[in-house]
Amino acid sequence: MTKSLLFFLIAATLFAAEPNLMPWPSKIAMGSGVLIIDQDFHVAGTKGLVAVTRLLHNLSLETGIPLTESGPQPKLVIRCHGPRAPIQKLGEDESYRLEVTDQQATLTAPNPLGVIRGLATFEQLVTPSPEGFVVPAVVIEDKPRFPWRGLHLDVARHWMPLEMVRRTLDGMAAVKLNVFHWHLSDDQGFRVESKRYPKLQEDGSDGNYYTQDQVREIIAYARDRGIRVVPEFDMPGHSQSWLVGYPELASISGTYPIERKWGIFDPVMDPTSEFTYQFLDAFIGEMAALFPDEFFHVGGDEVNGEQWKKSQHVQAFMREHHMKDTTELQAYFTKRVQAIVAKHGKRMEGWDEVLAANPPKDIVIQAWRDQKQLADAARQGYSGILSAGYYLDHMEPASTVYSVDPSAGLSAEEKSRILGGEVCMWTEYVSTENVDSRIWPRTAAIAERFWSPEETKDVASMYRRLDAVSREIAWLGPTHLANYLPMLRRIAGDEPIGSLQVLVDALRAGDLDARDETNKYTQQTPLNRIVDAARPESDTARHFAALVDRMDTAALRVWLTAWRDNDAKLQPIFAKSFLAAEDAPISKELSRLGSIGLEALDFIEHHQHAPQAWLDEQRAFLAQAGKLHLELWLAVVPPIQNLVDKAK
Amino acid sequence: MTKSLLFFLIAATLFAAEPNLMPWPSKIAMGSGVLIIDQDFHVAGTKGLVAVTRLLHNLSLETGIPLTESGPQPKLVIRCHGPRAPIQKLGEDESYRLEVTDQQATLTAPNPLGVIRGLATFEQLVTPSPEGFVVPAVVIEDKPRFPWRGLHLDVARHWMPLEMVRRTLDGMAAVKLNVFHWHLSDDQGFRVESKRYPKLQEDGSDGNYYTQDQVREIIAYARDRGIRVVPEFDMPGHSQSWLVGYPELASISGTYPIERKWGIFDPVMDPTSEFTYQFLDAFIGEMAALFPDEFFHVGGDEVNGEQWKKSQHVQAFMREHHMKDTTELQAYFTKRVQAIVAKHGKRMEGWDEVLAANPPKDIVIQAWRDQKQLADAARQGYSGILSAGYYLDHMEPASTVYSVDPSAGLSAEEKSRILGGEVCMWTEYVSTENVDSRIWPRTAAIAERFWSPEETKDVASMYRRLDAVSREIAWLGPTHLANYLPMLRRIAGDEPIGSLQVLVDALRAGDLDARDETNKYTQQTPLNRIVDAARPESDTARHFAALVDRMDTAALRVWLTAWRDNDAKLQPIFAKSFLAAEDAPISKELSRLGSIGLEALDFIEHHQHAPQAWLDEQRAFLAQAGKLHLELWLAVVPPIQNLVDKAK
Repeated sequence: MTKSLLFFLIAATLFAAEPNLMPWPSKIAMGSGVLIIDQDFHVAGTKGLVAVTRLLHNLSLETGIPLTESGPQPKLVIRCHGPRAPIQKLGEDESYRLEVTDQQATLTAPNPLGVIRGLATFEQLVTPSPEGFVVPAVVIEDKPRFPWRGLHLDVARHWMPLEMVRRTLDGMAAVKLNVFHWHLSDDQGFRVESKRYPKLQEDGSDGNYYTQDQVREIIAYARDRGIRVVPEFDMPGHSQSWLVGYPELASISGTYPIERKWGIFDPVMDPTSEFTYQFLDAFIGEMAALFPDEFFHVGGDEVNGEQWKKSQHVQAFMREHHMKDTTELQAYFTKRVQAIVAKHGKRMEGWDEVLAANPPKDIVIQAWRDQKQLADAARQGYSGILSAGYYLDHMEPASTVYSVDPSAGLSAEEKSRILGGEVCMWTEYVSTENVDSRIWPRTAAIAERFWSPEETKDVASMYRRLDAVSREIAWLGPTHLANYLPMLRRIAGDEPIGSLQVLVDALRAGDLDARDETNKYTQQTPLNRIVDAARPESDTARHFAALVDRMDTAALRVWLTAWRDNDAKLQPIFAKSFLAAEDAPISKELSRLGSIGLEALDFIEHHQHAPQAWLDEQRAFLAQAGKLHLELWLAVVPPIQNLVDKAK
Repeated sequence: MTKSLLFFLIAATLFAAEPNLMPWPSKIAMGSGVLIIDQDFHVAGTKGLVAVTRLLHNLSLETGIPLTESGPQPKLVIRCHGPRAPIQKLGEDESYRLEVTDQQATLTAPNPLGVIRGLATFEQLVTPSPEGFVVPAVVIEDKPRFPWRGLHLDVARHWMPLEMVRRTLDGMAAVKLNVFHWHLSDDQGFRVESKRYPKLQEDGSDGNYYTQDQVREIIAYARDRGIRVVPEFDMPGHSQSWLVGYPELASISGTYPIERKWGIFDPVMDPTSEFTYQFLDAFIGEMAALFPDEFFHVGGDEVNGEQWKKSQHVQAFMREHHMKDTTELQAYFTKRVQAIVAKHGKRMEGWDEVLAANPPKDIVIQAWRDQKQLADAARQGYSGILSAGYYLDHMEPASTVYSVDPSAGLSAEEKSRILGGEVCMWTEYVSTENVDSRIWPRTAAIAERFWSPEETKDVASMYRRLDAVSREIAWLGPTHLANYLPMLRRIAGDEPIGSLQVLVDALRAGDLDARDETNKYTQQTPLNRIVDAARPESDTARHFAALVDRMDTAALRVWLTAWRDNDAKLQPIFAKSFLAAEDAPISKELSRLGSIGLEALDFIEHHQHAPQAWLDEQRAFLAQAGKLHLELWLAVVPPIQNLVDKAK
């Protein structure tokens, strides 16, 4: 039944003339006619540009047409006016101009970085049509709103293999993100090879770390896609994995295992010891040589100060230096580390806590606690990027993250210090199997916020284009679409998964806090349950809500009937699989929601007022159904609530 | 509607006690109780056996549970009594004994090859249950029926990258196949690096070839999975790609391009020239060192003799040697090549045409034309393997290929010469994107034919287990399940794919001959159409046929209504995508089939005899609908025909 309904749901988009571009370009004018993309599609003007090889590779995947670069009568001509910086710089020109006629496309850019961005646009323009695969005639002039458009990936909580990093970079390039912020160490793992201090990875990673050669490979891979790689080594807190091999770095002596749970833990580096700074000097020196980017992220977040309060020598140091609290002590540490980072030729970046140190103005502040931190930094003259509001593990829908603007509420001068923002993917509750379903497609919507003009904010347009860009990204490697059904198949065992999909489509996964509540999770907990397969946002609920808004009763009835009848169909799965059975109660509630919706529809269609007793009963149930169920939300509760209200 | 229906369809399998093993073991006795597989699952007794690492990796994928090999209280204990041969031998012992209780599993085998087979069985036993993932208590004693159980992969027509070869080997290991027959050269490509004759790959491969290091990597990968690698270099025909770099090998001098079309072509090596044999001696010597297997396949099929008939010097040679036809000339060539192969320490293998040369009895004949060739060879005292009946590009359903027995109709002595068989995947009409959907899951059914006792032939049981093993194989890498929906999404563009899936589920792709008819295909033709997404066998049609057999009218009505209404829903896709539009007529026919079926059901349910005029009209339409439509078959025609007959 889903299928026939989906057909109705999307009918509205059939005649959308808007091309499926995301991020939306700063200037676009549609022409008439189309350029055909077939086996005779060749490219000229770019001997040896990797981005062109990648365009052809991607288009071959997306269209199924074998394509080769050179050939007679090129249909895409590239004019690139100069080289790009040997190491990609913050603020480097990324502009381009793309003109497509029914005969030829011409891409003009000041440097290969602009070519990369223009090719990403060209790729998104390709679509099937009655005449074949085509690109519509168009003139686009484009450049980014913000120069720093990043994605932060935590590879410490759950290990993310190279393949996952590569496909993430491919997805980032498709939506013109340009910074990969690699969170390489935390309490639960130290993920990069140090030749100077090999016990970091030997003792702190369970064998899951990147070699220096692999790091160089990823940096080159990112550069080919116009992406800078900024490493982060979080200190002085979130550093327990360092202490496994080097306990002498800790504020309290002892032995430290790799932390397996999630949260804020006491172990912290000793800011009073010169050994600490000698170690960091050598380590940062090694890493500064490995990572060519201008910036070096030293973390600085979530230090609870417990070890410092408990340590006699730290307390003595604080008294000696007239420090009134551990915040001042951390500020001292931050200053020392900033000097080391600067000595090795880098600009420091840190989470917003580092502001307490009054560091030099050339550093960059990453605001994560809330947007006020960014505004404060900007007012104090610091450059900054926004991550508050872009935390993917908060499981907000695309519309919510899309609405967050890095420079909201700032004066013109303050705005000039806002470099952009970063999406954050923390990995407590994701594995390589489902992490992509948290990153994509929502990150594409945020990427539009970072690139497109401030006034690009139509949510309906965003969602329409997001569906297309999600499919595009799936061709490039990310598994957000591919892994959903296999995860359901695992849960269902030998049973057909149709009814399970009807259920899970109507749910959304709980956020970090919802999952933290039980406090039972560790790094080894299987992430194979319905909550792990469920998405952060229910497209079904969103589509259903739109049907309620326009009271499409025929379509509503199809959905509601499907939900009402679904619980019975799921019984064989519940009877056989523990992975499904724990969510049997939520299925029963979905079934009742279907019945309630059908009753509400009956009142509405018969122009009757629902009796107060009925309304009271349903509202009480809806209040209950709207609560968290074993880390899951029934995403269809609000639109059904809406339907019940209409029956009044 | 599909979903609710599928639920009914599979209900019959809910209580199947039979574990999802394929191939079915030679002896199995179910016990009572289950062994729990959770994070405490560890393995003992096998330090450093790659197969154990792979088991844990595969189980982690399939269950979503992070597993590590060593730990307290192993739940699987392996007893391996001796080493395996340094180079895997034909007929090497593959037996094992697996005993599972609710406390522990014990796998006993004479050598690591048996361990590999036993672990494949163990992996298939794991299933979700109310208690968690479990393995049922069981005692299995198992060994193969045939020692040669192969899959032949043509990497010349369409290039198959390393990744595809690896995932194929993973799938093969899951169903205990033990020979990877690598068809490395043909008219359309020469796919392996020769250091002695580098123009073979440089001029004959478009850059798509395996380096010798990569070949060694694949051989090691195969060995870890208990799989021999037998290379094939097809000669003297099917060798045009050799002639691009070395035209002096040809029977008629000239320049030769890589062939881009499919078929049997005239260019052929010159069997009268000593240069040919010197070249082959050096080349075969190089390859014999690269590929350690005892066997070396020299092709020998489909020589049309045209160049030989046209060449004066060849004709003169034939007269001089009293050869009455080109078959005798090819036999002369085969004898010379066999001597070269033997000189380099290998046993020759060839397609059944090589029998004409009366080669020594130690060679192996691969019968492809029909099963009679194999019987003839066996009667003449040759060992042989069967491929006739196992050609995947003939697009036969699993039930058909499953019914073909390599030693059918032979005497006991002749049977003793039948080594087994090979599935053949020729790649004219597949790309890396859809090749897996032709290989899997049908190859698993054939693998059962090769391994299991002759009397294992229940088709219903095979299909039930095939669904499970297909899902298992999909976890290991093969993309037969994963790529179906993306291919439909490409065809549908921005439209939802539900209705397209309803159509394509009811179709099956035409075979080699059906596609050859148009003669328009080349190596560069995009394989992105509905026929390329459609499967060789329609599960939907099979399930529907079962419903007709037991006259489940409620379920039949759901399907038939869905088909009747589907054409209208597909119109937006037809209007927008050329890839879909070409198949609009077949969708209209499916719609009419739905209507016809519903009318037939009405007659049947009202106990009326359908009028003769109605019957005549429908049968005429069914005859038409049962024909090939643009390379596609409407797979549901036969069961609807059946329904119409019942209405009589």
